Formats: sequence, C-alpha cells, structure tokens
Amino acid sequence: MRFGIIGSGAIGAYYGAKLAKSGEDVHFLFHSDYDYVCEHGLQVNSVNGSFHLDSVQAYHNAQDMPKCDVVIVALKSTNEHLLKTLLSPLLKEDTWVLLIQNGIGLEEDFVKTFPHTGVLAGLAFICSTKTKPGVVDHTDLGRLNIGNYNCKDDDRLHQLADVMNHAGIDASLVDHDTARWQKAVWNMCFNGLTVALNTQVDKLLDCEATDTLCRDLMMEVIEGARACGVAGLNEDYADRMLNMTRKMRPYSPSMKVDYDHRRPMEIYYLYSRPIAEAQAHGYEMRRMRMLEEQLLFIQQSYINE
Amino acid sequence: MRFGIIGSGAIGAYYGAKLAKSGEDVHFLFHSDYDYVCEHGLQVNSVNGSFHLDSVQAYHNAQDMPKCDVVIVALKSTNEHLLKTLLSPLLKEDTWVLLIQNGIGLEEDFVKTFPHTGVLAGLAFICSTKTKPGVVDHTDLGRLNIGNYNCKDDDRLHQLADVMNHAGIDASLVDHDTARWQKAVWNMCFNGLTVALNTQVDKLLDCEATDTLCRDLMMEVIEGARACGVAGLNEDYADRMLNMTRKMRPYSPSMKVDYDHRRPMEIYYLYSRPIAEAQAHGYEMRRMRMLEEQLLFIQQSYINE
Repeated sequence: MRFGIIGSGAIGAYYGAKLAKSGEDVHFLFHSDYDYVCEHGLQVNSVNGSFHLDSVQAYHNAQDMPKCDVVIVALKSTNEHLLKTLLSPLLKEDTWVLLIQNGIGLEEDFVKTFPHTGVLAGLAFICSTKTKPGVVDHTDLGRLNIGNYNCKDDDRLHQLADVMNHAGIDASLVDHDTARWQKAVWNMCFNGLTVALNTQVDKLLDCEATDTLCRDLMMEVIEGARACGVAGLNEDYADRMLNMTRKMRPYSPSMKVDYDHRRPMEIYYLYSRPIAEAQAHGYEMRRMRMLEEQLLFIQQSYINE
Repeated sequence: MRFGIIGSGAIGAYYGAKLAKSGEDVHFLFHSDYDYVCEHGLQVNSVNGSFHLDSVQAYHNAQDMPKCDVVIVALKSTNEHLLKTLLSPLLKEDTWVLLIQNGIGLEEDFVKTFPHTGVLAGLAFICSTKTKPGVVDHTDLGRLNIGNYNCKDDDRLHQLADVMNHAGIDASLVDHDTARWQKAVWNMCFNGLTVALNTQVDKLLDCEATDTLCRDLMMEVIEGARACGVAGLNEDYADRMLNMTRKMRPYSPSMKVDYDHRRPMEIYYLYSRPIAEAQAHGYEMRRMRMLEEQLLFIQQSYINE
C-alpha cells in the first residue's frame, strides 16, 4: 500500500515512520524539517522501542508527490484551508484520506471540498512530541481508532487496519460519530481549561473545584453528543476518562502547547463546531461556550500582538 | 449622629471623611494607616473637590472606640470572621450597622452573629482607591444605595439618608434584595472574569467573544435573582450596565486588585453564596459556577505558594 503523510509532525511522522519501517511505501511531506530529514533521516524515540529511518521518501512540495492509496492528514486543523493545495496532487479515484485531527465536523467539511474522496477519522490516543527537527519522542499510549465516514469497501478497510497492526500500530475500526465525540470528551475538557488557567492536566485534578469542573465539562460533551443522536456515551465514560487521566504523568494537551508557543489554537473544530452541532440539536453547551469565548479572548490577545 | 468606621480603606475612609467634614462625629478604626493618620490626618483627592481632615478621631483598637449610632462596615468580606471582635465594642441597643460590602447573603449571616442589631446593605457605586497611607483617590461616581434589611424605624432611616446627603454623599433608600442583586449583576460578571483572563474591564468589552460572554454572565445573575423571587431585574438592566461600562475608563474591579496583590479574593460572598441561593431556588448558574471554580483554582495556586 502506498501512503502519503501530509503534516509530518509528532503524529504524522510517528505513524508514517512505523509504516515505513514495516516495509510500506510511505511518502512524507515535510515543511521546516525537510532539509534535515533528507540529510539525517527520521528518528523515533519510543517507549515501545526506538528506531531510525536512514532513508526517507521526503518531499518539500506536494506537487512532487505520487498518487497514493491512503493519505494520512495530520495537519493542525487551523491549517485546513491548505488541504485543497496539499492534498489534491496525491489523490486518485480510489484514494482514501485518514484525518488524524482533533475535533468535530472535519469529515463533513472535507467532503465539501473533496466530494468524491473516501474519508476516515483517525483518533490517536498517543503522547508524542516533535522534540527537534526529524526527531519524534513517543512517551505513552499509541492506539489509533479509525472511524469510517463514507468509504464503501469493507474488505479494504479491514486490509488497512491489518497493514497498520502489522506495522505495530494498535489500530481498531470504530463507529465514526461515537469515536469523534468520545475523543471530544477528553479534548474539550482539558485542552481549553489548561490554556484558560495556564496549567497542566494533573494540577486541574489536584484542585477540588476544578476536578468538579472537569467532570461537569465532560458531562456537557456527553449531553451534547446524546443530543446529536450519538450512541455509546454515558456518564461512566466521563469517570473512566477522569480516572485514566489521574494516572497520567503531568501533561500539556496540544492546545496548551500551541498556546505556549503563541500559535493559533484549534478553537474552531475543538469548540465552536461541536457547540454549534449540539445547539442545532437543541442542547446549549453553556460551560463549553464560555470556555470557547475565553479561548478566543486569549488567542486574540497574542495573535494581535 | 455618631458614626463608627470599621475598615477605613478606599470606601470606608472616603464616606467617613465626607461625614466628618460635614460635622458629624466620626470615629475611624485604622489598621496599617493608624500612625500616619494620627500624625498627618486624612487626605481625600476627589473629582468632586479634594479636602484634608487635619484632626481625625482615629483608633488602632476597636476596644477603645465609643458606642455609635451607626457603624459603617467596609471590610473586605474575606475578613467577616473578624466582625464579632471589631464590631461588638461599638454596639449599643439601637446601633445600626451599614454593610458597604459586595456580595449576597451578608446581612443574613450578620444577624446570625448579631441577632438584635439592625443592619442595612450599602451598595457603593464609586471608583476610589487608597493610593498611599492616609490618602484616598476618588476618581469617578460616588452614589451609595442603602437597602434596609431589618431596621424598624423609617423616620430614623430617612434621617440617616438626609445626614449623608447633607455630607455630599449621594445616598438613596432602595429595596434591599433588589439592590444587592443589581450590584451582583456587574460584580459577578466583571470581578471574576478580569481575574480569570488577567485583564481589565474595557478589554473584555473590546473582544466580540467576551462581550457576548459578559452579557450572558449578567443574564445568568438576572435569572438567578428572578428565581430567588427578587423583583426589578430584567434584560434591560444587563444592557444598561454594559453600556455604562463601555463609557468607563480602563478599570480593575476590586477582586482584580486583590488578585494583583495576591490577596484572598471575595469568592464566597460574590460567587459561592449567590450561586447557592439560586440553586436552592431551582436555578443552576452554570457559567457562574464555572467562573467560581476557576477563581478557586487561581486563588489556591497563589495562596499555597
């Protein structure tokens, strides 16, 4: 299977490197790391075993890339407007696109731009960071849930999952909407609140007031999902996520990392969009709306600087 | 009329000085400013005309103060536990106590400690700051709304208002519950949000997202007041408060000043108590609860330091 990787950061480079190491034909689009990777290859420091790719099929321009069977998009969703340019050269009639991105509404928007392309949601439960050019540190977890949005060929879907599992990626096929909203439960709680309070996940759970708030925020996402008719989310899920999080080491969610670097935050797909979806189904996510508004204020204060 | 002033800061010293200048018999309890005021008197720099009191009846210990007809309490509500000690020496059978403090539930708690004492709510609409020991800067507004909680003598109440107006204080008699909740509309919105986002009032209204949030926060207080059966608050009031605030100069509410100095914040009477009152009447102030929880997190992070 030929893979393309658009967005070769902490997530894209990690999964792409795993596939390449396993012998798949993987083509990476790099931005700032291009020169370094051409010269030095790609290093993955992983809790499951570190490895180095000496020779990487790296590109600096999407126009130079070949048509692919599967393209993994691991761009920040703040760059979604670039997809038309970056992705089009890689697409053939039966290309599938796997959006490993956070938020709600990404596939719905994708098919507006690419109405004839099959698209899958990728939900990565992984702690990985690009620590230097061409170096990814993978410190915890790694599971990749794949939710089919509009792909018609079940056999090929299972084949994709098999290829990934063969490459040492713990991939599972899951229900699309359930998977996206389940991930939103954790993301909408911790991404925004660590930014709003300029803190880390563990500190929020160490304080009685914000521990309560985190659960209420999670419950609001679950209520929102239910309003949208999404099955498989209930109160237990919030408690499971909280208990899992209590066992994690001090951790800054991706939005907090973006904030720390004064980069644009993924407010739209992580907050505005799911809030609007729930509202369209009659449920007001009041706490989440407030958090979204706080994040917009915070982002405006440094983007305008 | 003999007045006592407990809490001679930006508010207490200002109103006390106005009364003293007008010829009333005013006795001030000072804490850190005591020595300075004994030596240099009290200076009020006011938009309505500055003046200086050369001789001030100042005390460093409430035990030394005389019994008073009216005691103005202008302590931070975080010091409410000191009232028993500070106030008792000044009380006689018919002393009235005017609580010029922010929040909801202050008079209800006061009568638990002083069941036989008449108590009034004082709602100060004033921008004043203690800039140096013995110096108060009064930069804007000045109105004092007085809400009767349990005082029986209407003639005496009007007499008190007359004495204050004669002293150049723009005092009015208003409905107790309405006045307290009306003030809460502004306070609960701007005090907490300027701390949570570490900003000033004008910046919140300059950003579209937080401008919307401010109105939603105000509406939540109005809904809470309505749930508690308080008359005279409707949607118009939020818009009037927002329009008034848009005309104000850049301003840090008192809680923001406390935060900037890493002092305890008045979270209990400004947030926890009104939220609990509304909840007891069946209305959940969800945004306000979230703001309260954020404030508790923020306060814990510096009080523990």
